[in-house]
Amino acid sequence: MIVVMRPRAGEAEIANVVRMVEALDYRAHVIRGVERTVVACVGDERGEGHSLAHLESVAGVERVMPVLRPYKLASREVRPEGSRVTVGGVEIGGRRIVVMGGPCAVESAAQVEGAADAVKRAGAHLMRGGAYKPRTSPYSFQGMEDRGLTLLETAARRAGLPVVTEIMDAQDIDLVAEHADMLQVGARNAQNFSLLRRLGRIRKPVLLKRGMATRLDEFLMAAEYILSEGNPDVVLCERGIRTFETATRNTLDLNAVPLLKQWTHLPVIVDPSHGTGVWSLVEPMALAAVAAGADGLLIEVHPDPAAALSDGPQQLTPASFAHLMAALGPVAEAVGRSL
Amino acid sequence: MIVVMRPRAGEAEIANVVRMVEALDYRAHVIRGVERTVVACVGDERGEGHSLAHLESVAGVERVMPVLRPYKLASREVRPEGSRVTVGGVEIGGRRIVVMGGPCAVESAAQVEGAADAVKRAGAHLMRGGAYKPRTSPYSFQGMEDRGLTLLETAARRAGLPVVTEIMDAQDIDLVAEHADMLQVGARNAQNFSLLRRLGRIRKPVLLKRGMATRLDEFLMAAEYILSEGNPDVVLCERGIRTFETATRNTLDLNAVPLLKQWTHLPVIVDPSHGTGVWSLVEPMALAAVAAGADGLLIEVHPDPAAALSDGPQQLTPASFAHLMAALGPVAEAVGRSL
Amino acid sequence: MIVVMRPRAGEAEIANVVRMVEALDYRAHVIRGVERTVVACVGDERGEGHSLAHLESVAGVERVMPVLRPYKLASREVRPEGSRVTVGGVEIGGRRIVVMGGPCAVESAAQVEGAADAVKRAGAHLMRGGAYKPRTSPYSFQGMEDRGLTLLETAARRAGLPVVTEIMDAQDIDLVAEHADMLQVGARNAQNFSLLRRLGRIRKPVLLKRGMATRLDEFLMAAEYILSEGNPDVVLCERGIRTFETATRNTLDLNAVPLLKQWTHLPVIVDPSHGTGVWSLVEPMALAAVAAGADGLLIEVHPDPAAALSDGPQQLTPASFAHLMAALGPVAEAVGRSL
Amino acid sequence: MIVVMRPRAGEAEIANVVRMVEALDYRAHVIRGVERTVVACVGDERGEGHSLAHLESVAGVERVMPVLRPYKLASREVRPEGSRVTVGGVEIGGRRIVVMGGPCAVESAAQVEGAADAVKRAGAHLMRGGAYKPRTSPYSFQGMEDRGLTLLETAARRAGLPVVTEIMDAQDIDLVAEHADMLQVGARNAQNFSLLRRLGRIRKPVLLKRGMATRLDEFLMAAEYILSEGNPDVVLCERGIRTFETATRNTLDLNAVPLLKQWTHLPVIVDPSHGTGVWSLVEPMALAAVAAGADGLLIEVHPDPAAALSDGPQQLTPASFAHLMAALGPVAEAVGRSL
Repeated sequence: MIVVMRPRAGEAEIANVVRMVEALDYRAHVIRGVERTVVACVGDERGEGHSLAHLESVAGVERVMPVLRPYKLASREVRPEGSRVTVGGVEIGGRRIVVMGGPCAVESAAQVEGAADAVKRAGAHLMRGGAYKPRTSPYSFQGMEDRGLTLLETAARRAGLPVVTEIMDAQDIDLVAEHADMLQVGARNAQNFSLLRRLGRIRKPVLLKRGMATRLDEFLMAAEYILSEGNPDVVLCERGIRTFETATRNTLDLNAVPLLKQWTHLPVIVDPSHGTGVWSLVEPMALAAVAAGADGLLIEVHPDPAAALSDGPQQLTPASFAHLMAALGPVAEAVGRSL
Repeated sequence: MIVVMRPRAGEAEIANVVRMVEALDYRAHVIRGVERTVVACVGDERGEGHSLAHLESVAGVERVMPVLRPYKLASREVRPEGSRVTVGGVEIGGRRIVVMGGPCAVESAAQVEGAADAVKRAGAHLMRGGAYKPRTSPYSFQGMEDRGLTLLETAARRAGLPVVTEIMDAQDIDLVAEHADMLQVGARNAQNFSLLRRLGRIRKPVLLKRGMATRLDEFLMAAEYILSEGNPDVVLCERGIRTFETATRNTLDLNAVPLLKQWTHLPVIVDPSHGTGVWSLVEPMALAAVAAGADGLLIEVHPDPAAALSDGPQQLTPASFAHLMAALGPVAEAVGRSL
Repeated sequence: MIVVMRPRAGEAEIANVVRMVEALDYRAHVIRGVERTVVACVGDERGEGHSLAHLESVAGVERVMPVLRPYKLASREVRPEGSRVTVGGVEIGGRRIVVMGGPCAVESAAQVEGAADAVKRAGAHLMRGGAYKPRTSPYSFQGMEDRGLTLLETAARRAGLPVVTEIMDAQDIDLVAEHADMLQVGARNAQNFSLLRRLGRIRKPVLLKRGMATRLDEFLMAAEYILSEGNPDVVLCERGIRTFETATRNTLDLNAVPLLKQWTHLPVIVDPSHGTGVWSLVEPMALAAVAAGADGLLIEVHPDPAAALSDGPQQLTPASFAHLMAALGPVAEAVGRSL
Repeated sequence: MIVVMRPRAGEAEIANVVRMVEALDYRAHVIRGVERTVVACVGDERGEGHSLAHLESVAGVERVMPVLRPYKLASREVRPEGSRVTVGGVEIGGRRIVVMGGPCAVESAAQVEGAADAVKRAGAHLMRGGAYKPRTSPYSFQGMEDRGLTLLETAARRAGLPVVTEIMDAQDIDLVAEHADMLQVGARNAQNFSLLRRLGRIRKPVLLKRGMATRLDEFLMAAEYILSEGNPDVVLCERGIRTFETATRNTLDLNAVPLLKQWTHLPVIVDPSHGTGVWSLVEPMALAAVAAGADGLLIEVHPDPAAALSDGPQQLTPASFAHLMAALGPVAEAVGRSL
């Protein structure tokens, strides 16, 4: 940590800062520049009680600049070779690109079965589908809830696919974990720390989506909440951030893929369906995600998008999904992966 | 709702759209322009199952543009004179500017008592303080939890101030409601719809903070979740949004104040402490908030910010808070309000 | 400047960095931490050739963190008491709040005369109006150009008001300077460094608007381009930044006002017309700007906004402008200023 | 265009709106809904004087929603098969992915010759290099200007590569056009309409970069400025937008690639060097850009990035660039293109 003093900070102020940081178990190095003095502090910036931003309130201090990245368990340095997370027998983070397909929301047995057949036939490895739906409006369809879970599980099992589905409320964890192989945390709960902490105490893999305004270091800190409670099986999912651009529903931030792969050992997948909100952009952005180094994809597929009860514009038809899967193989191979 | 067809949409495609929207109980008006045909649809855009965005998946459709705003109960049209919400005897939304002061986090009996005395003496109307803290890092101080609630309540009662405190987890609602007069939903839970729904079923006022990436229409939809469950006592709080600017921790968006006052009947207050993250900006932005029409302020005050366990840089000392309160009176009067 | 080395940087890499920074006239202090070594560099970070970001390409280096703010002449430290800029006899930066009013674009003699009378009568101190208009579309009205300049000057002189108008093209500087008392650089040219440099060589005050994506340190660097060429008369104008919020045309960032007043000695004014793009928000945000510490306001006033050839929705009628001016006086006095 | 009336707009207000839009040569259709009346207007929304936003100032009007996209000449509908732009014999927009490589800034004969040899050897098709540099700070290296142009041209001609270089000031157009085969407009001048208009009158291809806060429709309107003056040879370049994320210098927005390819016939290339600002992200994002459908790449290559006078951290070494080119071939083939 570097403490930058104000231009005319006095000796007493500098001495006070040194005293304070030493009381926090840092060694302090005072460096006097032409215009400003800085106090370079050596120690572990990540311990409890070491939230050092409050030093900015101390007399004479202009700014506090952390040097270390704030996450520990999620850091690539911990496991340079990368982690692999196994979901119902399917390994994420290895050579194979893992594709999760299925409808935004479970709407009926027929719909979810149609989707399961379609994604299985096209070569997907997992089935996704929402039983609980976080909808901006309380008047919109909120999902079929527990009945949806059963329909989803039945359809996926029949098709021979493991299941990933969203968890919105900590009180549903046991129920959802009974039906699903992987629990997904949506973008709106990306910093719901109560929920993250509880997911750290279960023995099922967690798919953690990036929040709409979550910076990458904060995203890894959210993962750290799960990891630090004892659950090592976290997969990160880039799903678009909120920017000034309105042509797409979100701005899918593919830069996050290679950057996260450098910073963390956790697998990283991409959701181009929510990330763009426009079905005709899903295939090109899926190909781009894999070219950028993603370990997998989360794709919305609906037997009849025009009749969907949620997020119609971003769901693929079975035919479009099959087209995407066919296009994906050569790109995966071009970057040394397989489908 | 306006459905814009693609440039070369055929008659069959147009007829299909008409059939689909009529099946949803709209009346359809087909208007043929030089380059495009639009289908203007008359009906209630906000009913269940009427999430019409999925029409964008229909053949020949380019875009769907909603005409009505999506909230009902929060709309100013429902109560043009504005709502007043009473918290422990203090009315928010009337002529008086309501000031809520106190530390970011409850840290000890001495600290919270010092803060209570300071804010009371300077003229604040409510006491704030966090017992549960949503911290980006799992390694940071997470709050004193239930013990913190007791300390906070004790200090505030002694000073004769009603209490507002944050709720992070639905399972704590009963406990928190026992100690507090108003429950606050933080920015990170602004779209935690499970929590919002449950807060709609209690009989305590809710202080709902805007999320870091929440648009104003979405903010009102979050309030609608609470209102539609039966709790009419919602106060909105602007607390800064996330933008590209890094000079401030967030970008306090005061434009939201007059705009929300036009759109909704709910009271609107402003949190310049989180909104800027810099203590020296709190006073000028507090004055600006009141000049812009805010009904109240949420201000962080700590007896000793440099020793604070969270958010030191944005907390005021008792002296700075007293200065702010003294400066506030004349501005309030200048815009026809009082303190 | 602080150079943060990678976790496992070797001694040779550290020695190489020390050699490189010393070759750039810095003194280097090597500080060895538990996980990382940092090299603290003492010297002037702002000299030519000292653009040190390229050190991030050096082997073993993780990040380079500057310590000094990059502007010199614009810094508050240079003139702690603040600058005053005089425009046609009107002083900006003193106790008085300076109001500049007038239409977005000059459209006709009658229109600009009507506006001049209206703003003068309501108490404005300068007249604004656009002869050259930066329009997003080449098919929109582009301004009356040189004829507009003459009409604007004539109307303003008759009303006894100095003139401020926008300059879009360096080749028009002499012509515009002949007709106007202050030259305005619009948001789209906020980083048109060729134009800024040329404006640094004239002897007329410059009104520099913040760009839509310009951070405050970059804004001051843009001012530095003008100052460093010898023109000391620069007034800064906050006019809204681009964010994800679409309810307003821009997000007027009032936080910039107190922050800029801390960082620079240059006067700071606010344009709530462009900043919000909505006429009904102009008055509350104008009051808020003054409460936040602005030295002046730039307000669009049109005799008949509904007939305006540009930016109708954000222009005030003469009656609304008179209302704003009446409301402004008490707020100015409440913060120790006058109108 | 759709005019949405306020909830309680009266008949006289509706009639007035109809009269106004008909005076502008629209046909008006009044549609009465349950809560609001809308006036659907049929006509060309893009004519001079038809900037209809000012209707939002008319009594009783709530909002004006345009239906047509505002660009004409840039629209895909004009040329569904796509345009090809030829630069010094190299065709952009065809099957071949065109790679432009070279240093951020021309610094010396040796440096630019080293770069030319390196990019040529690795298989690049054009040479890039900056003689005029838009630098945030007036104290940073501003480019070698005319001498830089000569060095750049000499090195590129010797290597047999056409030249692309940035133009910052309209007065330099003739000089730059003498030395270069393509003129680049940088992000900071993306809405410098004076410069764009003049580039519309020359007979050299223009490489137009997206601004940091430019929406895609505005980007196409900037291209429209050039096209509408008679120059058909415009290539668009995505180079990153400004968002809240600070891990990358900009957020390279690859979504723009497939979206622009749908909206416009103009070729689209990607600059992952500026787009990320981090050399280690350049290769993965370059591969992703091609997978997303880009027609080409703009890559910064420097013989010795650590000694570069500008933008060191994002420039590739010759070896890294050769590695990128080797990786690019298979990805290009995987999406039906070649290198």
